[in-house]
Amino acid sequence: MILTVTPNVALDITYRVDRLIPGSSHRVRGVAERAGGKGINVARVLQALGHDTTILGFVGGASAATITDDLARAGLAHELIPVEGPTRRSVAVVDSGDGEATLFNEAGPAVPGTGWDRLRALLASRLPDAEGLVVAGSLPPGAGDDACARIVRLAAAHRVTVLVDTAGDALLQAAAAGADIVKPNSSELLAATGRSDVGAAALALRRRGAGAVVASLGEAGMTAFTSEGSWRAAPPTRVAGNPTGAGDAAAAALVAGAVAGTPWPERLRDAVALSAAAVARPTAGSVDLTVYRTFVHRVLVEEHHAAGLDR
Amino acid sequence: MILTVTPNVALDITYRVDRLIPGSSHRVRGVAERAGGKGINVARVLQALGHDTTILGFVGGASAATITDDLARAGLAHELIPVEGPTRRSVAVVDSGDGEATLFNEAGPAVPGTGWDRLRALLASRLPDAEGLVVAGSLPPGAGDDACARIVRLAAAHRVTVLVDTAGDALLQAAAAGADIVKPNSSELLAATGRSDVGAAALALRRRGAGAVVASLGEAGMTAFTSEGSWRAAPPTRVAGNPTGAGDAAAAALVAGAVAGTPWPERLRDAVALSAAAVARPTAGSVDLTVYRTFVHRVLVEEHHAAGLDR
Repeated sequence: MILTVTPNVALDITYRVDRLIPGSSHRVRGVAERAGGKGINVARVLQALGHDTTILGFVGGASAATITDDLARAGLAHELIPVEGPTRRSVAVVDSGDGEATLFNEAGPAVPGTGWDRLRALLASRLPDAEGLVVAGSLPPGAGDDACARIVRLAAAHRVTVLVDTAGDALLQAAAAGADIVKPNSSELLAATGRSDVGAAALALRRRGAGAVVASLGEAGMTAFTSEGSWRAAPPTRVAGNPTGAGDAAAAALVAGAVAGTPWPERLRDAVALSAAAVARPTAGSVDLTVYRTFVHRVLVEEHHAAGLDR
Repeated sequence: MILTVTPNVALDITYRVDRLIPGSSHRVRGVAERAGGKGINVARVLQALGHDTTILGFVGGASAATITDDLARAGLAHELIPVEGPTRRSVAVVDSGDGEATLFNEAGPAVPGTGWDRLRALLASRLPDAEGLVVAGSLPPGAGDDACARIVRLAAAHRVTVLVDTAGDALLQAAAAGADIVKPNSSELLAATGRSDVGAAALALRRRGAGAVVASLGEAGMTAFTSEGSWRAAPPTRVAGNPTGAGDAAAAALVAGAVAGTPWPERLRDAVALSAAAVARPTAGSVDLTVYRTFVHRVLVEEHHAAGLDR
């Protein structure tokens, strides 16, 4: 069983409009709602791959019932800790003309220290049954930068493989706490480390304590820096679609590969193919398994031999 | 006591963003939520003017509690009939740079025939205590075009003055049912009647059966066509602000004037001044009473003497 923690759960609302014109009034043609946030998207992809998962996080306010109903309908096990403030909404307005999405992301509710205590207590009771743990997404307002790091240390104490996908100081502290894998996108990686080169930035995170650093490079694929070597993987062709959720699909592939003990080049190939499979689907958390199966044999994986890479 | 019916209640959500850029992702800096829909806005303005009101309508889904909590907090009496589908949201995204608002309006839930039966039964029990009734706003999906007309006939049977602010065939049928006042804006009036002239369109609605037709003309003020005469009223100066809710403030002034038996020129003066007072406030349903008191003595009211106007 793989646990996923979503510190800042969202209610993802998608509005379809004829054409988005700033300053005007739009009739919403279609409304779709589903539970979102990176950790939940990772769990959806893991479920599609046949893994048992349990979703952990915080929920509150009027959206809480909508979120838990949606997860129950999808057959996704979840244990969500109630908080007082309302769960954030993330509204995506999709222009029916060009398919372009415009996003409005609320900040989410502050989680009090007692909420984090409850989350760690819950994790401590579930980690003995877990093979892997993913902590993914932004932190809610008021969270300490050590929130992910404390979860990493808890997982390490239970010898459970942990992958962290977050940004900023929380990313740095998760690396320092010894996360097995950190998976920022390249701009998050550069911003957190203050470097201008992905390899140098990954090296900095590994020197802090991260086991492996995997950075997504958008359409160019992904690059991994590990104790066994460094690789770059690129998709065979460009896939048209919605890139939101591509990183979450990659995180699902990486934690599944780590749990299975798959060699790194294969993990990375899987991650890139599954990212493409996510782009091919309009909603984050969904993957097109046909695209995945087609791509996985055609992803090009190359080993890095650059000087200065910490092998 | 003045009853207001809002056939399609909304949860009005306002998002403040730094700058609205289509196709990009926005951090929402501030979220405000309140119960909305034209009839509710009218009730808020009536309350500000010192009138007792009761809000009637339908609510459902996750937003229902947010709406009733907001009304209770505002001290607004309400009797809302539960329906299965979720109450619509209306999201206004306000650009912090230029203050421009971009609106996304959901359609709202279908109200079954039994819901309308319950609303009419509720109205029948409240009308004996009412001096006036306002039916304002769009109809929910699936409502018959006679929904407003049936409410008008119910009010007439109880000899309660009724004002209707709606559009399309529902407006035509409300006029035919003998609504004391219909108050569309000029474009709704022209669209419903298929005329190109406001005076001719108003005459058409009065010939159908409406007691008086009042059309809002945006910044140019308002015009009224009644059995006592026809007038036009213009604000003394332009007011900067949010025009959403100006028509609702006018409806509040008009029903209050009708209940008090105020002569038409004064009612129209009040309606224009209160519209300006609504524009001066950022949220629909609020009025700046200082602006109102300043404007009310300076609104210019002129009697129409044009040929062809049905006096």
